[in-house]
Amino acid sequence: MEPKIQQLKEILGEISDLNHASAVLGWDQQTYMPAGGAEARGNQLALLGKLSHERGTSPELGKLLEGLKPYAESIDPDSDEARLVKVTTRAFKKATCVPTRHIIDFAQITTLGQQSWMEARQAGNYSIFQPALERIVELRQEYASFFPDFEHPYDSLLDDFEPGMKTSEVKKIFEAVRPKQVELIKAIAAKPNVDNSFLHQPFDEKKQWDFGAEVITQFGYDWKRGRQDKAAHPFTIGFSVNDVRITTRVDPNFLNPMMFGTFHECGHALYGQGADPNLERTGLEEGASLAVHESQSRLWENLVGRSMPMWEHFYPRLQKVFPQLKDVSLEAFYKGINKVQPSLIRVEADEATYNLHIMLRMEIEIALLEGQAKVKDLPELWNSKMKEYLGVTPPNDIQGVMQDIHWSSGMIGYFSTYALGNLVSAQLWEKINQDIPDLAEQIRKGKFENLLAWLRKNIHRHGAKFEPQELVKKVTGSKIDPAAYIRYLTKKYSEIYGL
Amino acid sequence: MEPKIQQLKEILGEISDLNHASAVLGWDQQTYMPAGGAEARGNQLALLGKLSHERGTSPELGKLLEGLKPYAESIDPDSDEARLVKVTTRAFKKATCVPTRHIIDFAQITTLGQQSWMEARQAGNYSIFQPALERIVELRQEYASFFPDFEHPYDSLLDDFEPGMKTSEVKKIFEAVRPKQVELIKAIAAKPNVDNSFLHQPFDEKKQWDFGAEVITQFGYDWKRGRQDKAAHPFTIGFSVNDVRITTRVDPNFLNPMMFGTFHECGHALYGQGADPNLERTGLEEGASLAVHESQSRLWENLVGRSMPMWEHFYPRLQKVFPQLKDVSLEAFYKGINKVQPSLIRVEADEATYNLHIMLRMEIEIALLEGQAKVKDLPELWNSKMKEYLGVTPPNDIQGVMQDIHWSSGMIGYFSTYALGNLVSAQLWEKINQDIPDLAEQIRKGKFENLLAWLRKNIHRHGAKFEPQELVKKVTGSKIDPAAYIRYLTKKYSEIYGL
Repeated sequence: MEPKIQQLKEILGEISDLNHASAVLGWDQQTYMPAGGAEARGNQLALLGKLSHERGTSPELGKLLEGLKPYAESIDPDSDEARLVKVTTRAFKKATCVPTRHIIDFAQITTLGQQSWMEARQAGNYSIFQPALERIVELRQEYASFFPDFEHPYDSLLDDFEPGMKTSEVKKIFEAVRPKQVELIKAIAAKPNVDNSFLHQPFDEKKQWDFGAEVITQFGYDWKRGRQDKAAHPFTIGFSVNDVRITTRVDPNFLNPMMFGTFHECGHALYGQGADPNLERTGLEEGASLAVHESQSRLWENLVGRSMPMWEHFYPRLQKVFPQLKDVSLEAFYKGINKVQPSLIRVEADEATYNLHIMLRMEIEIALLEGQAKVKDLPELWNSKMKEYLGVTPPNDIQGVMQDIHWSSGMIGYFSTYALGNLVSAQLWEKINQDIPDLAEQIRKGKFENLLAWLRKNIHRHGAKFEPQELVKKVTGSKIDPAAYIRYLTKKYSEIYGL
Repeated sequence: MEPKIQQLKEILGEISDLNHASAVLGWDQQTYMPAGGAEARGNQLALLGKLSHERGTSPELGKLLEGLKPYAESIDPDSDEARLVKVTTRAFKKATCVPTRHIIDFAQITTLGQQSWMEARQAGNYSIFQPALERIVELRQEYASFFPDFEHPYDSLLDDFEPGMKTSEVKKIFEAVRPKQVELIKAIAAKPNVDNSFLHQPFDEKKQWDFGAEVITQFGYDWKRGRQDKAAHPFTIGFSVNDVRITTRVDPNFLNPMMFGTFHECGHALYGQGADPNLERTGLEEGASLAVHESQSRLWENLVGRSMPMWEHFYPRLQKVFPQLKDVSLEAFYKGINKVQPSLIRVEADEATYNLHIMLRMEIEIALLEGQAKVKDLPELWNSKMKEYLGVTPPNDIQGVMQDIHWSSGMIGYFSTYALGNLVSAQLWEKINQDIPDLAEQIRKGKFENLLAWLRKNIHRHGAKFEPQELVKKVTGSKIDPAAYIRYLTKKYSEIYGL
């Protein structure tokens, strides 16, 4: 191996170890940590974050990357080594533009932001959260100002989650999607709605848990390299290619959260477990972007998990586990889990309405960054957009502008990745079905190996080697394109609702 | 605050954060980590260990401590600040005597040592473990050579676990204890043994767990600052004064492991939860020594947990939880949990025989370090000493010389702290009963607040401020003295066995 590549891998290995140590501490914080541990955990995480940042912005690393440029340009540009230099150089350049003082300020205000968000929710009073959010928006504006080369202030934020993606691209994509989704929802609303009351009844928690585990085992989740625990806000986290864990929540009176939550997190985890082991401890084992990650979770949650072939296989088993479903037909079940109902809460939204929740958030974020909207006016702005897009009005800010934790932790520019992930999932799905023509038949038989192998080969193994648009184009022949998603939604709901 | 003290606290805070982050990773490794995570975890722990060691031996820290010497000598020598300087200086001096090369060698050989110990146990073949153990002994001899000022090579090792304790002191203590314990065991062996077969029957695991939790809640374990999980080899670990966790194992066919294991670990955890918050993030929140820690675990496990007053309170409740005990009288139960039976395995040994297991190990360790014993001859040496002290002969090396993990991980000099802990627990117990004359009556009523408050005031809050001998003398008026333990054992077993 080129000696400088070896040196680079040693530095990246330490950064990766520090980040993964932080991840273990974060996992524990959200699963098992007693309340008393919070303050000390904050100190521990702050130190590990600082050490990782120092290494990731060190002049030594910069010099090494500079020295590696000619070598990286002399080899196959898609090779692991060339990509390692490229991706690391990009991240290094971005990280070194941000003064340490800003990072400390941001860490402090987002810690405070999360506290005041929780207090504001408990009190049902947005004004408690407002001052922290104002400061967070200011700091996000300041962050954007460190990157004058980006065409829009939102670009630099988005780029942290979606390397290479431009705000103008996302806007264009969303503008193509929105009218079609609004139209579809209107058409659905004109039809009698389906019944899903059978999903809202007592379901034994342990049996729910075991059923979810049984399904994802069949999907291909590797329990020797992962595990599942409970968490209030489910997430997936990796400490290594060989230790990728999921968390799930279980509602004793509603089947969906455990079921689709488990499939969703499993999709993320299969991505994590599928990275090329050669990428371990380089930072490139983490996945191409949040949107590509979300494409994997959504694919298993929705394209597989809410499909008819899936339940042709699993529904008899589910009925056996929960005899209270024995009089609910497969078709009624399928329709029930796909019920469309414009609602207030993003995380509970169905496939047809979900993206509208995202667009609303992205529009608000852009307006905030541009200074077109004021933090103090957000509740009103939120409610008016909810009315416009979804026809519903939040009765309070807890179910409105304060429903998501993201802004309180400074994650502005993050939401759009959820909708992009939906679009990518459908785009991939069309390609997969071309490559595996009998996929539906395989799923009907409970066979997921070929699907997983396809994802491993085309998406998972690459880790973060390619930028999201690059990867999607490489695999499907075009960049992110909403057409497949619209086709998917229209076909599915036309059948269910007889449009 | 003296500015240099502030600087010192900042450095120690970072070291503490790194060590506590390692502790979280270690806890996860032993409770929840999937098998696949082991390799990456090794890398993460090695890095955190390296960073902590670098900080703990940095010239900057040395200079700071040197500069603080006059200040520390000018204030109350028992104050937190004076002790912080003293304890940290001592640890710094010791750590800087050890070359980094030695630390790396030692880390490598002990990783290998644990692997080969496990393989040797699986194969029932000591010779698989022998080469690694030979190298470990060599490295422990080399370690001792870095400290020519200690009077015995064993001293420098022991001192890592028992600051300030000399091998000659421990030998003298053990020489006083051994004949008395051997005599006691012989006297017991001459009497008909008690029956404890009722402890060996099926006990529902969940009910066992809940009963243990109920008891330690009453002992005073603070669940807001801790939690309990299952582990193959139970341990207690702290990530902060406010996050001290215990682990326990449950045997579905034997009540003792869960019950006394839980009380034991709770004893450690009460110590951890009881440190003065002012010592948080200084390294002094960890406890005075292993022996003092063990005095706390043994006190709750044995002096409280195997006492008659304890079960006068809890036995009716235990009988209610496990109706299969309804025909076992309180007296029979009390005798059963205190049954003496010389046996092969240290961790299963009763109070009367336990210390002999330790003395045997310490004698072997000293002989190894002195070069008087060879690693290849250990199985034979072990078995002959077992015969001599306990009258039993291991049928194989798994139940003999290979039963403990300690030597494979380089922990030579550690075992004696277990026996010292027993002695200290009884010594403290006599003092506590002088200070709280109606303690037995309080325990009979399930009241443990005064006991815990006494321990908090006299032991827990001090953390590692005082050396173990210093602390024991401060509290009881004399250094570690085996007389109290002999009195305790003799009285207890005379009653049980009618000696």
